[in-house]
Amino acid sequence: MTDMAGLKPQHFLWDVENGVARVRLNRPERKNPLTFESYAELRDTFRQLAYADDVDVVVFLPNGGNFSSGGDVHDIIGPLVAMDMKQLLAFTRMTGDLVKAMLNCSKPIIAAVDGVAVGAGAIITMASDIRLATPQAKTAFLFTKVGLAGCDMGACAMLPRIIGQGRAAELLYSGRSMSAEEGERWGYYNRLIEADALEAEALTLAKSIASGPTFAHGITKTQLNQEWSMGLDQAIEAEAQAQAICMQTRDFERAYHAFVAKQKPVFEGN
Amino acid sequence: MTDMAGLKPQHFLWDVENGVARVRLNRPERKNPLTFESYAELRDTFRQLAYADDVDVVVFLPNGGNFSSGGDVHDIIGPLVAMDMKQLLAFTRMTGDLVKAMLNCSKPIIAAVDGVAVGAGAIITMASDIRLATPQAKTAFLFTKVGLAGCDMGACAMLPRIIGQGRAAELLYSGRSMSAEEGERWGYYNRLIEADALEAEALTLAKSIASGPTFAHGITKTQLNQEWSMGLDQAIEAEAQAQAICMQTRDFERAYHAFVAKQKPVFEGN
Amino acid sequence: MTDMAGLKPQHFLWDVENGVARVRLNRPERKNPLTFESYAELRDTFRQLAYADDVDVVVFLPNGGNFSSGGDVHDIIGPLVAMDMKQLLAFTRMTGDLVKAMLNCSKPIIAAVDGVAVGAGAIITMASDIRLATPQAKTAFLFTKVGLAGCDMGACAMLPRIIGQGRAAELLYSGRSMSAEEGERWGYYNRLIEADALEAEALTLAKSIASGPTFAHGITKTQLNQEWSMGLDQAIEAEAQAQAICMQTRDFERAYHAFVAKQKPVFEGN
Repeated sequence: MTDMAGLKPQHFLWDVENGVARVRLNRPERKNPLTFESYAELRDTFRQLAYADDVDVVVFLPNGGNFSSGGDVHDIIGPLVAMDMKQLLAFTRMTGDLVKAMLNCSKPIIAAVDGVAVGAGAIITMASDIRLATPQAKTAFLFTKVGLAGCDMGACAMLPRIIGQGRAAELLYSGRSMSAEEGERWGYYNRLIEADALEAEALTLAKSIASGPTFAHGITKTQLNQEWSMGLDQAIEAEAQAQAICMQTRDFERAYHAFVAKQKPVFEGN
Repeated sequence: MTDMAGLKPQHFLWDVENGVARVRLNRPERKNPLTFESYAELRDTFRQLAYADDVDVVVFLPNGGNFSSGGDVHDIIGPLVAMDMKQLLAFTRMTGDLVKAMLNCSKPIIAAVDGVAVGAGAIITMASDIRLATPQAKTAFLFTKVGLAGCDMGACAMLPRIIGQGRAAELLYSGRSMSAEEGERWGYYNRLIEADALEAEALTLAKSIASGPTFAHGITKTQLNQEWSMGLDQAIEAEAQAQAICMQTRDFERAYHAFVAKQKPVFEGN
Repeated sequence: MTDMAGLKPQHFLWDVENGVARVRLNRPERKNPLTFESYAELRDTFRQLAYADDVDVVVFLPNGGNFSSGGDVHDIIGPLVAMDMKQLLAFTRMTGDLVKAMLNCSKPIIAAVDGVAVGAGAIITMASDIRLATPQAKTAFLFTKVGLAGCDMGACAMLPRIIGQGRAAELLYSGRSMSAEEGERWGYYNRLIEADALEAEALTLAKSIASGPTFAHGITKTQLNQEWSMGLDQAIEAEAQAQAICMQTRDFERAYHAFVAKQKPVFEGN
């Protein structure tokens, strides 16, 4: 068991309150770019989260009116241009490992997006489970603008399943910004919220999910990933097993007894 | 060959007219809940349908203004809380087997939804091929509300492919109702229809599909399921084989001769 | 290396300008039907494109106000009705091979649709990466109308990932036309454009993509197909490898140096 409330990361902002961890990328004067160090520290944090009992939901929040400008040109792209293949693959695997860690941490992740969310910043929102945004959010998978392919950190697999294959292809080939309105209409954003209400709404949603059966939420997250490329019959059998596990939790019993007593269930995550 | 028109189910309403089977879950005073018995009888009915020649299309209809309230708390959840793992897995497999039987019956299934369609009731609409609803339809995958995971009867596999990964995640973690308007906008409902016209429209659509090449429809349904997790090149080869089979049916010939004679083809399903 | 600018196809119109190939199906007085010969020649052309250095983007354009009426009833369906199974499978594999060749040619394909795009004509738009259309575009997967299944040339695999499983099922079972407005709302069409501006807009988009890092675009296209049925963790590793390859291209370096010099990068596709 790991205590995440006490974490003091060096490269991003972090706090935990009532089971909800809040993350903000940092250096708002540069729109919160990612660096080699923040990638690695985020990856390690989400890997630890898989074992944490004091965090049930994670919320990524903007900082200074922006979400993240992604991998910085000077801090990241410059050094990459000079690397050999072994070093490059170590880098792309590290960034991919951040997404894998987010997917495999067993906690729902909410991204609350304002302003710029581009490049690896956009990927962090894509790898989250639920996405809220302000009308000013600009999301771009702009890898093509720096001479790269759209296949970064899982984008060719995940983006088509969120917004559809045709819309994803256009964004990945053009690198253009998706507006907040497009994002909501296409299923990328679950809801648009004015900037001054974004954080409060994201935290309300996070608390509401954290007050649910968090062990079962972890199984939901596991199965959403696990069934990604299963056959239908196999997915249905996998769910029969996974749900049978949840039916032996005390939270299931708690819900039943609360219902019989006409009360609201109080879940404890076991 | 099985004669389905003569079926007298005990736990749901059923009739067959001109190749269209109509199903209504029963006990409208309790919003048509599912019970252990109705799950099993529905599963067996859809398994039989795979061999039936007198049903070409199935339509699920509401009963008393509601579709279904899902697994009843007293009739189903109470007993489940007392079961051991062997019994629980037998139950979750039985419910999954209903979805498998719906997917593998080779007949298009239309769900016509009014009022409440929640829990396993929502799953039945999800496992149908085409969905119509009234503006009053409320659909909720509310498993989380009773302490369970969203992975019930295939929901983590199928719901994301119908409405997108992000929208599915929000519904499964929150258990909230999807409104009819959201459902239409997101691709869950193919069309919204006023309550007083719902059944007539659903039956018109059913008859229209039943008047098509029903053997070929069965192949369409098979391939939609079969290609779920195939590679693209493999899916294309699978379709080359499946369509070549259909090109040796007499319905294909009938369509050609009707076209040449400037007539409407009359298909016979072989 | 293959020179595609000099191609003189017999069964469709073709020209190449500045790396953009323009294709028009032919015989506008019959709405540009496909024939055995044009299928085969298109298949061979897209296979050659995989090795071509003088084409970076392909644009399918309408001809005489229509895209394509698909496989002609007299030229194609008549002969098919008389074929044996070996011949039928050779035909369905040839049509599937056209889609495979479009998917595997490594060049982004844009379909600009006006008027009728039905049957195999609709499939060509579906197998393209980006789709533009006029408000008059009518797209129908009408195989069911001629007694066949919806599983033609990959439709049961690809259409659900573009517009969602439920909408795809309805189109494939009914064979009905999808309007341009539905197509845009559902993610089939990326954008609607008035007929008199369609070709210019499609070519502007094509040139813009052709001016990007075309080697990396080829990798984007490869990965969109390659990851179709991979597990998520496997897709992320595949992207780590694919993007590391792109990071050793000179286009990546060019983008970096242009950025540092506050200039627009000029990509050369290597």
